[in-house]
Amino acid sequence: MNRATGVCYYPEHWPEELWVEDAARMAAAGLTYVRIGEFAWSRLEPQPDVFDFDWLDRAIDVLASAGLKVVLGTPTATPPRWMLDRHSDMLALDGEGRPRSFGSRRHYCFSHAGYREECRRIVTSLAERYGADTRIAAWQIDNEYGCHDTVLSYSDAARAAFRTWLADCYGSIDALNRAWGNVFWSMDYATFDQIDLPMLTVTEPNPAHVMAFRRFSSDQVVRFNRVQADVIRSHSHAPLIHNYMGRVLSFDHFAVGADLDIASWDSYPLGFLSERLEASDDWKRTFLRQGDPDFQAFHHDLYRAVGRGRFWVMEQQPGPVNWAPFNPAPLPGMVRLWSLEAFAHGAEVVSYFRWRQAPFGQEQHHAGLVRPDNDAAPGLAEACMVVDEIADLPPPGTEPASVALVFDYASAWAWETQPQGADFDYFRLVFAAYRALRRAGLSIDILPPDTADLSGYRLVLMPGLATVPPVLRAAIGAAEGVVLAGPRTNAKTTEFAVPVPLPPDLPGLSATVTQVESLPPNVDVPLSGGGGLGHWFEHLETTTGHLLTTEEGTPALVGEDRRWYLAGWPDSKAFDRIVALAAKAAGLETERLADGVRIRDCGSVRFVFNYGADAQPYRNETVPAAGVLLMAR
Amino acid sequence: MNRATGVCYYPEHWPEELWVEDAARMAAAGLTYVRIGEFAWSRLEPQPDVFDFDWLDRAIDVLASAGLKVVLGTPTATPPRWMLDRHSDMLALDGEGRPRSFGSRRHYCFSHAGYREECRRIVTSLAERYGADTRIAAWQIDNEYGCHDTVLSYSDAARAAFRTWLADCYGSIDALNRAWGNVFWSMDYATFDQIDLPMLTVTEPNPAHVMAFRRFSSDQVVRFNRVQADVIRSHSHAPLIHNYMGRVLSFDHFAVGADLDIASWDSYPLGFLSERLEASDDWKRTFLRQGDPDFQAFHHDLYRAVGRGRFWVMEQQPGPVNWAPFNPAPLPGMVRLWSLEAFAHGAEVVSYFRWRQAPFGQEQHHAGLVRPDNDAAPGLAEACMVVDEIADLPPPGTEPASVALVFDYASAWAWETQPQGADFDYFRLVFAAYRALRRAGLSIDILPPDTADLSGYRLVLMPGLATVPPVLRAAIGAAEGVVLAGPRTNAKTTEFAVPVPLPPDLPGLSATVTQVESLPPNVDVPLSGGGGLGHWFEHLETTTGHLLTTEEGTPALVGEDRRWYLAGWPDSKAFDRIVALAAKAAGLETERLADGVRIRDCGSVRFVFNYGADAQPYRNETVPAAGVLLMAR
Amino acid sequence: MNRATGVCYYPEHWPEELWVEDAARMAAAGLTYVRIGEFAWSRLEPQPDVFDFDWLDRAIDVLASAGLKVVLGTPTATPPRWMLDRHSDMLALDGEGRPRSFGSRRHYCFSHAGYREECRRIVTSLAERYGADTRIAAWQIDNEYGCHDTVLSYSDAARAAFRTWLADCYGSIDALNRAWGNVFWSMDYATFDQIDLPMLTVTEPNPAHVMAFRRFSSDQVVRFNRVQADVIRSHSHAPLIHNYMGRVLSFDHFAVGADLDIASWDSYPLGFLSERLEASDDWKRTFLRQGDPDFQAFHHDLYRAVGRGRFWVMEQQPGPVNWAPFNPAPLPGMVRLWSLEAFAHGAEVVSYFRWRQAPFGQEQHHAGLVRPDNDAAPGLAEACMVVDEIADLPPPGTEPASVALVFDYASAWAWETQPQGADFDYFRLVFAAYRALRRAGLSIDILPPDTADLSGYRLVLMPGLATVPPVLRAAIGAAEGVVLAGPRTNAKTTEFAVPVPLPPDLPGLSATVTQVESLPPNVDVPLSGGGGLGHWFEHLETTTGHLLTTEEGTPALVGEDRRWYLAGWPDSKAFDRIVALAAKAAGLETERLADGVRIRDCGSVRFVFNYGADAQPYRNETVPAAGVLLMAR
Repeated sequence: MNRATGVCYYPEHWPEELWVEDAARMAAAGLTYVRIGEFAWSRLEPQPDVFDFDWLDRAIDVLASAGLKVVLGTPTATPPRWMLDRHSDMLALDGEGRPRSFGSRRHYCFSHAGYREECRRIVTSLAERYGADTRIAAWQIDNEYGCHDTVLSYSDAARAAFRTWLADCYGSIDALNRAWGNVFWSMDYATFDQIDLPMLTVTEPNPAHVMAFRRFSSDQVVRFNRVQADVIRSHSHAPLIHNYMGRVLSFDHFAVGADLDIASWDSYPLGFLSERLEASDDWKRTFLRQGDPDFQAFHHDLYRAVGRGRFWVMEQQPGPVNWAPFNPAPLPGMVRLWSLEAFAHGAEVVSYFRWRQAPFGQEQHHAGLVRPDNDAAPGLAEACMVVDEIADLPPPGTEPASVALVFDYASAWAWETQPQGADFDYFRLVFAAYRALRRAGLSIDILPPDTADLSGYRLVLMPGLATVPPVLRAAIGAAEGVVLAGPRTNAKTTEFAVPVPLPPDLPGLSATVTQVESLPPNVDVPLSGGGGLGHWFEHLETTTGHLLTTEEGTPALVGEDRRWYLAGWPDSKAFDRIVALAAKAAGLETERLADGVRIRDCGSVRFVFNYGADAQPYRNETVPAAGVLLMAR
Repeated sequence: MNRATGVCYYPEHWPEELWVEDAARMAAAGLTYVRIGEFAWSRLEPQPDVFDFDWLDRAIDVLASAGLKVVLGTPTATPPRWMLDRHSDMLALDGEGRPRSFGSRRHYCFSHAGYREECRRIVTSLAERYGADTRIAAWQIDNEYGCHDTVLSYSDAARAAFRTWLADCYGSIDALNRAWGNVFWSMDYATFDQIDLPMLTVTEPNPAHVMAFRRFSSDQVVRFNRVQADVIRSHSHAPLIHNYMGRVLSFDHFAVGADLDIASWDSYPLGFLSERLEASDDWKRTFLRQGDPDFQAFHHDLYRAVGRGRFWVMEQQPGPVNWAPFNPAPLPGMVRLWSLEAFAHGAEVVSYFRWRQAPFGQEQHHAGLVRPDNDAAPGLAEACMVVDEIADLPPPGTEPASVALVFDYASAWAWETQPQGADFDYFRLVFAAYRALRRAGLSIDILPPDTADLSGYRLVLMPGLATVPPVLRAAIGAAEGVVLAGPRTNAKTTEFAVPVPLPPDLPGLSATVTQVESLPPNVDVPLSGGGGLGHWFEHLETTTGHLLTTEEGTPALVGEDRRWYLAGWPDSKAFDRIVALAAKAAGLETERLADGVRIRDCGSVRFVFNYGADAQPYRNETVPAAGVLLMAR
Repeated sequence: MNRATGVCYYPEHWPEELWVEDAARMAAAGLTYVRIGEFAWSRLEPQPDVFDFDWLDRAIDVLASAGLKVVLGTPTATPPRWMLDRHSDMLALDGEGRPRSFGSRRHYCFSHAGYREECRRIVTSLAERYGADTRIAAWQIDNEYGCHDTVLSYSDAARAAFRTWLADCYGSIDALNRAWGNVFWSMDYATFDQIDLPMLTVTEPNPAHVMAFRRFSSDQVVRFNRVQADVIRSHSHAPLIHNYMGRVLSFDHFAVGADLDIASWDSYPLGFLSERLEASDDWKRTFLRQGDPDFQAFHHDLYRAVGRGRFWVMEQQPGPVNWAPFNPAPLPGMVRLWSLEAFAHGAEVVSYFRWRQAPFGQEQHHAGLVRPDNDAAPGLAEACMVVDEIADLPPPGTEPASVALVFDYASAWAWETQPQGADFDYFRLVFAAYRALRRAGLSIDILPPDTADLSGYRLVLMPGLATVPPVLRAAIGAAEGVVLAGPRTNAKTTEFAVPVPLPPDLPGLSATVTQVESLPPNVDVPLSGGGGLGHWFEHLETTTGHLLTTEEGTPALVGEDRRWYLAGWPDSKAFDRIVALAAKAAGLETERLADGVRIRDCGSVRFVFNYGADAQPYRNETVPAAGVLLMAR
């Protein structure tokens, strides 16, 4: 398999007479894949049970005739208006009980059985028609699950499904009462039918109740996706893909990914910097037109794991977007850099969103490769350069890294449910660890929480992993490398209680967290030797060695041999010290990279990326601003 | 006609025995007009169809006997409680679907036909009784349309009316689907009855949908107002007035004003500074007790345009108010300054709100000319001074200025609907241009967007004018002066799409905006020679001359001859440079005024106002703190 | 009676086999009281009318057998889930009309008659069973009234009760219309049934309407509490207590307290610092692990007044809590300091919350004296020290202080209803005065607003007291000490109007507030000689002496003899000057204490507390960090 590029295209948006020219220009630009169809339900089935596939047939024909491979999307993210006449209760409700109305997209509740059957119906029609069509190179199911906060729904459908889910999980209401600790504040239930969704309570609801609802809600996404996956598989051999969205943590991507063949994600570096990143104003100004130097890499590594080695970038930002608080234009070079970085992390395909900027609708200020007036936009030339460059690269995929980082969606829900400190956020903590590893020049694998085998990794981090599953616990016991847990690792039982014995209670770690502190932004716990712990600090009882201590002499990083525990949330200086210590113990070489410079090793090639707006030295070379160097390893 | 002052009075608030004394004191203070009645419905019609006009007869008699001219308000802004028994669905609903309840004011939906008929009924009663009464010098219809965010209503009445309005506009649902681009995200409708109000959608609704709702909502205000105007005109020859509120942009004041004879507005400089002005903390502290030096002037110029030359200040702040976040007292002199400034901009009447401070109700900390204990408040003496001073002034009205600024309510809706950058605000942009012109000592006319004739103006600005109507387009083509468009001028079609050819596409301007950027507050694009562009920056393709460039050499201000385009939002230094360049090209003399000093030419007189808390020099004179100089031109 | 300590315990949370050991450890720690039962309704009455008191019998037996005295809580703060099947409309509604749902606690509307009867029923069962039981040393009714903003309810039950309450208050609707000034904005009502709760109005509702609703809502708490008090008193001689929560001002604690024997409050110094205190980031950092040096003392003095001399701390923070934005751990020594400070202010009992940290439920990160794994938490040793130390102290209670500060819940509602400046807050103002008195080393009594006798006090402050009741007015007239009123004292009538004559209109004070100003945070009115007035400034007409003037020479503090008026909100420097002047005039000695040092005189003992993280000198002694000195007076 070769690396390739692609583009997202909406034939239904344009006069049919433009299609041939569009397809020819795509092919001329070297693009291989074209994704279509994922929002077209109102044109595929303009009235209930009245289908119009003719235009889609013609579009596929035009595209395939130009040599392009089609990725066909199922249109279930945008049910047409008439669907509401059939299923007036299919809308999700928000956490205040308000319906999330028609007029944009994703206005369905994952738990609505009627809508799920409608999806089965339209997807069956598509699969029957195109399942055996070899021009369809892959299928995309739905679009950006969870985008716009759409996983949690407080509808009647969701409540009914939640009660069934709970009855299946717990068997008896007494078991549920015991598991949740409902004796606290007289919250006992007599029947499953008494249990409401955790909303609008006077003060916070029982966190066990919330966590059950979060698990249930994630399961409903998996169930929804599986219906479509099963239908398509029964008609097609083409691989199944979903396009996940950056920093959406409301459902378990590993679980959805288990039913699919390839993971993909939608990479909008400038939008993410503006909207989805905690960073100082200075940092955001520095990387305004380049994006954060680690955010995309993290997601590439994450989705490589979700895809069990196979991932795409389904939508790549090609210019300014429309949806972030502020929407600057990328520096010249960045579209190429982002694309090559995806390939460096193992992507098979980078597909640009979108071909031509739409002059109407919600995204009319979202750049495409081509302007509304059909002239080339700046991104097109860079996309063409990428096509040339990837021809010389080794095949996609990457060998395993030496360093691993465990990432767990349920932990994100756990600390959102019970942050204990107002700014405690799981992604932010894990990402801080990821950044520190990257600053040291390390290439990283991300692992799911149920990883059974850590052999081969010389260093494994698992910060904030709320509950260590038995299989990972066993793997920790057997691991040959350095395992660094904490803070807040294994701090909750599966029922979201404080475990006894107290955390972390992990093999090889003789340390006990006796008390936890959350700290406001202007306070930290300084470490002896530099750096400090902020946001979070744990008091340890331990007989093991102190690798780092606070200025007051209390333990901050402890461990013996190769099982370490970190008793707080390090600032970047402290994290650099910790990574240096751990890498040394693990026998890993590190280097200290400048803020905008990042490296990724891929087979025999080392990619050096410069996210900076100025040229930067790397070893004996100079990396141009917004530039990429390829070096032999 | 002479300039005059007036006052707002509520006879129904006070024991009848006070009226004679009040009227005598008003007359003694030199006040000419007294506005009454606009909140008195519950006393005019205490029970449904049971009227009590006797007290109003007596009040008019007392006031007129003292030599005062009465401005009679229609009481439709405050329907009594019993109205809800007749029309339980007359309340507006807010954007989350909650009724906006009885208990304050303006609790009606403009689209409720039943309530509109009730208004016709009460106004007919008033017009029949007082229409021929020559003691009634003018009528005020309703009160502060749009205040408290009351134009947009999400009620059943509004939804039904919107569907009718859409059917009238578009004729067929296919036409609407095409016009709005509803193919995007499968938003197609099959019938007009499927279209809901754009609320509570999962992510942003189609901007074309929102803009249609904004236009509809504005039209409903016009329609509501017209009912009353028609009734009164059929019984009275007195002029019709509405009192608009500062910086309320939710309906088209030009359209309402077209049905009236005189525009008026309610001028609360200190309240506006605290609540309705984007400015630094330092700026707000500097002008805390004086108000912003340009905000009132802008509105005077705006309402002179809305009134087609005729305008009043219906409510002039006379001391501290109650409704802003912070409510300081004016510096001694400011009540006089504000009054004279209104006259300098052409006001016919300045009327103070209110006579005596009400010790009860919502506004009990709103100062009047007289205190609750009936002693004179500080504002009274200044109002008396104004009476003396205006006796010597030339008659009201002003000759046309040399500089014009186009102001368009629909553009305010456009950029609120689709700001593309979180802090992009139309008023703020236009006001920044206005300030820059004023800092240069220029007197300005504000023009509506459908202005057909720009001849006579040596400089015309039209920043952010979303859509240039054909009539203005023709006027631009024919204009003799310098026309400065941009940023974001003509950037949308009438259906809120990106036009092709790309903007600005204006006569005489060979420039194309190929890409737009919104920028966060801490970032700007510095200009070569000083100043910068913030908030917004456009990439231009142009063959025309570069009048200003960025430090990187890309065009910032371009043009040839007398058609210029500005590719971003200038900071104040850049705006000063641009105004200087444009004024020079236009043959206009400018000067650089200090922060608190502003001038306005009016006939043979130049007014010099000092909004500063310290004396300031102007040419060879000294303007006292909070003072006014009148100079011969 | 001796001072004693206690602890809160939940036998229903733990296996019964742990009870004996727990009780023995409590006794061994020197604890005297154990509070139980207040959240146990679902275990006392697992199904409607099916009771299970056996476990409670056994728990009481175990505890009493260990020598502990039981404080028995009524469980009415946590009605079980089945209660909603009986009374589906018993939930409170919030100010947007949304039900406040089951799943945490306090989910009842105080106005729901059905629920009030259910409470009478369960409390009668408890009182019948345990009323004569001498092992029950005291009763706690309900838990933390008002916590989680639960006093105001917008339910149908509340609306109906409000109408009845209004009819009782006003007799006729005309009287109500007149009293509220409903002529303003045509707000007149024809019947009491037309009056809704003041919610979701277009702009602010009539403040008289809001204030009536606030008074009504407070009365409903009193009424609710009284039902239980009456039941228990008819069966028991043990004292009745309620545990109030810090800075909860939504109901009149004096009025509830009048039906009880002892006041108690729940003291969480670190939670309060993080969540309920306006202070600079620097101040909060300085006292992060100690709590504010005045906040607890204020509440001790307040609840001593509410309890008419008798008060407890029912829940004392023993370590980190779970509910504040940030939850640090106390410095070693602070649990002891907080406990001794309560005793210094006259507490009879300090009871720690809770015995063992619960590993489940909402508060699983709330420390106890014992950890979830049953090891001692850090607070236990300090609690033991306190037991030893209080043995040597004089008996509880304190003699009257020389300085008094009037505190009035209705004034908190008044300025919340009509702040006139965005940051005007009654508690904050009174607390600023309290802090200034404490910085000067003074011990203070807090007095209710209906205090009839001020004799014995040499200095009495009553800042922001919205309405001075006749009885206090008389007491002011007769007072021998210095009485310092203002700002905003006596500024409203009982019907929330501006009084005429204008305020303050108090005996011996010839000053009139003619105009008020609210000021933004970055503006103050500097005083001649240092310090300034911020937030609020009043213009005075006065013939009396100027004790302090602004830099412009206008009066800031005026008075003659011993009746003084303060025309604004002083910053801390100005407040120190004012306290120094007033104390001197009152013949009181003052000293200037360091930020963290505070003193409290109690009989023959002077307690010196150091809230600082470093040792501080006091006279010739050194007070250790987080330490306490006891000195003879």
